[in-house]
Amino acid sequence: MPNGGPEIEQLIQLLARLPGLGPRSARRAVLHLIKRKEQLMIPLSAALDRAVAAVRTCEVCGNVDTASPCSICADPRRGESGILIVVEDVADLWALERAGVGNVRYHVLGGVLSPLDGIGPDDLHLDGLIERAPAYGEIVLAMNATVEGQTTAHYITDRLAGTGIKITRLAHGVPVGGELDYLDEGTLSQALKARTAL
Amino acid sequence: MPNGGPEIEQLIQLLARLPGLGPRSARRAVLHLIKRKEQLMIPLSAALDRAVAAVRTCEVCGNVDTASPCSICADPRRGESGILIVVEDVADLWALERAGVGNVRYHVLGGVLSPLDGIGPDDLHLDGLIERAPAYGEIVLAMNATVEGQTTAHYITDRLAGTGIKITRLAHGVPVGGELDYLDEGTLSQALKARTAL
Ligand SMILES: [Zn+2]
Ligand SMILES: [Zn+2]
Repeated sequence: MPNGGPEIEQLIQLLARLPGLGPRSARRAVLHLIKRKEQLMIPLSAALDRAVAAVRTCEVCGNVDTASPCSICADPRRGESGILIVVEDVADLWALERAGVGNVRYHVLGGVLSPLDGIGPDDLHLDGLIERAPAYGEIVLAMNATVEGQTTAHYITDRLAGTGIKITRLAHGVPVGGELDYLDEGTLSQALKARTAL
Repeated sequence: MPNGGPEIEQLIQLLARLPGLGPRSARRAVLHLIKRKEQLMIPLSAALDRAVAAVRTCEVCGNVDTASPCSICADPRRGESGILIVVEDVADLWALERAGVGNVRYHVLGGVLSPLDGIGPDDLHLDGLIERAPAYGEIVLAMNATVEGQTTAHYITDRLAGTGIKITRLAHGVPVGGELDYLDEGTLSQALKARTAL
């Protein structure tokens, strides 16, 4: 076993499956951990244990939190704005929260429509959105500016047609083809402020 | 708490301290883990627990393993070659093992001499090397081709002067300024084969 025993080898292989880490950087990360056993490796192990035990998906909005309903869904001030922002992924929700977009609520679709990948409406959390939508004054469609994201936005607009609910999308501050999670917070904030009616 | 509760936030902050991961990629890694709780997050948590319990530093050579003496020091065939390769770091030992350099043993210095950083001979595992050296027919100095690495190699050569032990260095297949851990395995293997006497 070249890399110091099966326990170390297995840790390297699992870390290598994280986005942004390959086999080489996973080896470096494991050595980094081993050299900082007390300050980093043991705390990381404990933090993972706690997160495994605590984390759940909000049954209302699809956010990841330690309670369901999540802290955003449970906060009454979040409902006052009447704004529900629809995102593809929890990462996008986190990005909008970091941008400080205000007292809004979210709905996480868990993906986008993609016929080529066999992802249809039943594979996304769309029914929950259609159910929740009437409680809000405005639905902001904040999908990525990709073909699939915009196809999904059109699909939702069609589903909500005739309900009289105001539907908007993020302003075109979002670069075409860009993904929300990679944008700086100022751009995201501006894009929300300049949102336009569909 | 924007990112889903203190347990998640703490996990992000600890992962962000790994080399190659920053705050953004740590957030992505944590979402990746949460989405793959059964397949990845729980196995990673268990692997970390096992590694924390099992990992130790070999008191003979400085390698990281689950036993001390490590599997390399404990393997009698490793001693038959009579070759002891001196490296700066465990990552370099792993790189040489991946290159399949043969039945050799190692000595991990744990760094290099660097007067500017206040690192002197007493901060490295040098005494252990001087003690072990007479048991070997050849000492290969495989420090990085940096100023500090070569300074350290000269220091060791001086310390072993008069012992009659053959001292060699890796061939100049190692690019000047380069670090062993970044080299491909063929280059490393060639550099060892063409090692030259000092
Ligand atoms: Zn929620
Ligand atoms: Zn050893």
